Amino acid sequence: MRMAELSAESGVPVATIKYYLREGLVPSGELTSPNQAQYQAKHLQRLKLVRALLEVGGLSIVDVRDVVRAIDDRAPTHELLGVAQHGLFVRKNEVDEESRAWARALIDDIAAQRQWTLEEGDPYVKSLVSLLCTFRDLGHSHLLGIFPHYAEIADAVALVDLEAIGDLPTAEQMVESAVVGTILGDAVFIALRRIAQQFASRKMFGEDPPAAG
Amino acid sequence: MRMAELSAESGVPVATIKYYLREGLVPSGELTSPNQAQYQAKHLQRLKLVRALLEVGGLSIVDVRDVVRAIDDRAPTHELLGVAQHGLFVRKNEVDEESRAWARALIDDIAAQRQWTLEEGDPYVKSLVSLLCTFRDLGHSHLLGIFPHYAEIADAVALVDLEAIGDLPTAEQMVESAVVGTILGDAVFIALRRIAQQFASRKMFGEDPPAAG
Repeated sequence: MRMAELSAESGVPVATIKYYLREGLVPSGELTSPNQAQYQAKHLQRLKLVRALLEVGGLSIVDVRDVVRAIDDRAPTHELLGVAQHGLFVRKNEVDEESRAWARALIDDIAAQRQWTLEEGDPYVKSLVSLLCTFRDLGHSHLLGIFPHYAEIADAVALVDLEAIGDLPTAEQMVESAVVGTILGDAVFIALRRIAQQFASRKMFGEDPPAAG
Repeated sequence: MRMAELSAESGVPVATIKYYLREGLVPSGELTSPNQAQYQAKHLQRLKLVRALLEVGGLSIVDVRDVVRAIDDRAPTHELLGVAQHGLFVRKNEVDEESRAWARALIDDIAAQRQWTLEEGDPYVKSLVSLLCTFRDLGHSHLLGIFPHYAEIADAVALVDLEAIGDLPTAEQMVESAVVGTILGDAVFIALRRIAQQFASRKMFGEDPPAAG
């Protein structure tokens, strides 16, 4: 199909598609003349994926480029699962050496319990260090008790995630599914967590605010 | 303490503190002369909370203002838990009527299973509608199978969350803990999910990329 049809089919304006092409988010079409390119179903699918990552997943253009490159390079599945949303969740937060060592020891304990092997420089470990230090700095150390429970629950989620993609017929489908399931899956899970919290909270505290302390 | 001490104690520049005061993120100090205000420990604590929500939680100024207002107004705990990160996770996505009805039916099924009562206009339900439609539009309907599992797991997380705050001595602590645990808890959980996925994926797929399809 030509650019105009790709635009009509996807609902994405031509100017926006051209921007995605320049940024390398969508692969070029096959040139049939110096000013004319043809696009296939794979271009339409990629365009839909890019839109979903940007609009529903909330990723930046740079993050989307990292994600589609990882898909195209056939990165190992376990690397691919880690590629997205670095920018969104790994916040910069200055942490002193004592705090870092304290948080890292907590994380290593959990990893040993879960039999996880942590890789050096894993951005999610850095993110956890920053988060745990923040709980402590704010005087909410009692919240650290949720951490081993969360780790156990994260293992259950990862199993569900992997089972959902493990039996797909082709590597392309598996890889794209892993990305979509991981990035949009975060949003699904967070929405469900809020709904479950509202329900549990109404059950525990009733409709009234807690008494003043 | 005076503004300069508040700044030194918190590590937040004076100009930034003044901005937070103007935006209503931190309450005013007590005026001791027309140009001099005194700040207490509660101001320092609020300042730390605001910084954590902005820098570690990734909230916007507007979201932080909603959160601190909800804390100060002693909103019912279950409303408070829902206040944060609307902007971050409820993405706009045009959904046609048929798709909306289809997604809503799936969500109602899950809610019946979990015995959740969904409130009309709940932003997380809207978010879920948009997400489920995106999975279908992208041709990843097999991922919908994760949804009931996620809902069950979300109930487990909500129970852990509520237990962590339910026995705190004062309403102030309970309310602030709920906010911190909810917003930063998302980031903790997502980081743990990625680590668990990497581990499960290496175990399932080994170090090599899956064979080309």
